[in-house]
Amino acid sequence: MTGTASASLHQLPAWVDVTAMAVAAVFTAHVARRRRVPLFGVLLAGTIGGLGGGMVRDVLLGLEPAAITTWYYIPVVVGAAILGGLAAYRVGLDGLPFVTAQAVAIGLLIGIGVQKAVQYHAPPPSAILLGVITGTFGGTIDEILTGRRATIMSEGHWLLSVVVLGAVTFWLFTIYIGFYLAVVATVIVVAGLRVLSVRLNWTSPVFPGDDLHSADR
Amino acid sequence: MTGTASASLHQLPAWVDVTAMAVAAVFTAHVARRRRVPLFGVLLAGTIGGLGGGMVRDVLLGLEPAAITTWYYIPVVVGAAILGGLAAYRVGLDGLPFVTAQAVAIGLLIGIGVQKAVQYHAPPPSAILLGVITGTFGGTIDEILTGRRATIMSEGHWLLSVVVLGAVTFWLFTIYIGFYLAVVATVIVVAGLRVLSVRLNWTSPVFPGDDLHSADR
Amino acid sequence: MTGTASASLHQLPAWVDVTAMAVAAVFTAHVARRRRVPLFGVLLAGTIGGLGGGMVRDVLLGLEPAAITTWYYIPVVVGAAILGGLAAYRVGLDGLPFVTAQAVAIGLLIGIGVQKAVQYHAPPPSAILLGVITGTFGGTIDEILTGRRATIMSEGHWLLSVVVLGAVTFWLFTIYIGFYLAVVATVIVVAGLRVLSVRLNWTSPVFPGDDLHSADR
Repeated sequence: MTGTASASLHQLPAWVDVTAMAVAAVFTAHVARRRRVPLFGVLLAGTIGGLGGGMVRDVLLGLEPAAITTWYYIPVVVGAAILGGLAAYRVGLDGLPFVTAQAVAIGLLIGIGVQKAVQYHAPPPSAILLGVITGTFGGTIDEILTGRRATIMSEGHWLLSVVVLGAVTFWLFTIYIGFYLAVVATVIVVAGLRVLSVRLNWTSPVFPGDDLHSADR
Repeated sequence: MTGTASASLHQLPAWVDVTAMAVAAVFTAHVARRRRVPLFGVLLAGTIGGLGGGMVRDVLLGLEPAAITTWYYIPVVVGAAILGGLAAYRVGLDGLPFVTAQAVAIGLLIGIGVQKAVQYHAPPPSAILLGVITGTFGGTIDEILTGRRATIMSEGHWLLSVVVLGAVTFWLFTIYIGFYLAVVATVIVVAGLRVLSVRLNWTSPVFPGDDLHSADR
Repeated sequence: MTGTASASLHQLPAWVDVTAMAVAAVFTAHVARRRRVPLFGVLLAGTIGGLGGGMVRDVLLGLEPAAITTWYYIPVVVGAAILGGLAAYRVGLDGLPFVTAQAVAIGLLIGIGVQKAVQYHAPPPSAILLGVITGTFGGTIDEILTGRRATIMSEGHWLLSVVVLGAVTFWLFTIYIGFYLAVVATVIVVAGLRVLSVRLNWTSPVFPGDDLHSADR
């Protein structure tokens, strides 16, 4: 923490930060192996999936990324990527318990992202955008590297909409109510809406008049 | 503006900066909706399309991006993205007046990019590269996120060539003649050549011997 | 070199740095022209291919990239890109001498990347990751811009595996033995393994049980 951050604001404990990144690394490495990425590519995909969002956030805040300056982030996400890769054909990570675990991790990542932006005095719209970036850009960079269209730009179950709502929720709670309640509320909003959208097969909100499913493309 | 920038050099007024970004956001959001991106994805595409080029430029200059530190950039481009998305199927933005508007915005973005680089003492080749990046990378990131090949890397009407010429023009004028004439000259060069290339169906210059159209691929 | 770097640590002489980047620019421009990228796109692809990895490394170290602050990097890589583009259909750059030249350049880029990270006090895992990024991200950004899946995420001859081994080798040698031997050892490891893998048709290591070739996709 440098002198330009407000010491009075709360910070998620480091283990929450690392756990959220490790869970993201497990899932992104798992997805990469299923996309026929070779061994070292899976490890890099997990590393980027776990750390990429936070790295982009820190760079946009003008900071050297915490994942570069702190020695244990990379070993943890590489270990998580190995686990995620090994699990790829033994455990399906598509079931509801796993969707929930991933959504909780995304909720924590969003909270970490917004909180760090607030600590470094980013204005509210920037803090919300940086929360969205922290929660989604790691997996998005992986998708781009493996030649896919980004999920956040595609029709599907609610994802970017949930992330934006989560970032707004976190910002409102951490400013007006308190940090710990903000974490709880954001995880509930993100995991709750994400799981509901998968369970009830809700598709991404679209502009009025659009019907992405039926249209030719 | 920090102490490392030359105060004596001119700066585009903030409203020019914001207007250019808003126009870029309208167009990129419009394109995203036509590519079947859902609602929140269109808003993110407009935000990135409007602010992405300048963010990359500022990061490469070692600065915290102005779009993060200044509170009104994000609300303006999100608003512009909503307009661009809503307009997608009511107003075709492909006609010549719209191509001209977009080219003027790209010309202003290039000027903003080169000028900021010059203010922060970037050497001439870097200033020109940063102008090119400011003018093109927002839309390019959007194309990548939606699974497309970047237009700047593709055969088509003149685009990257016009942008490079515009950046060189701006640099020459702002150094040797003056800032305001540089803005005017760059907008004329970029918008003029871009519109001519669309009107007269000029295709991108290629290496001698290449004939991209006829080739198999 | 700022006050935060250790002056006592060795640095590659600037001409080695520039030569490695120029060779990378020749190859990436060559590849771009073969992928039917027009003239200015080939020049941009060579510029990004030569400088992109080092730029991402510097940004992740919280520095303004050397390629922006030093005036001659961009002219050199643009010149190299012109050569690479012109050579595209006269000289095939696929033969073993060219694969070797490219691998030597990648080895030097990795060394430059790890060394700069060590000088700026990055912890070992970060230094190794930054070496991998310096050696691979320039070409990777080009692949993404031209709508390809990244080679480092694809089955093929050894590449990412060789780069990771090279970065680990460099770090071990530069810390425990010495800088110049680290350069030599890394170039031998990277070029030797890369050429062997092409010559003997070794494919990327995969997770146990995977057989990427035979599988449907």
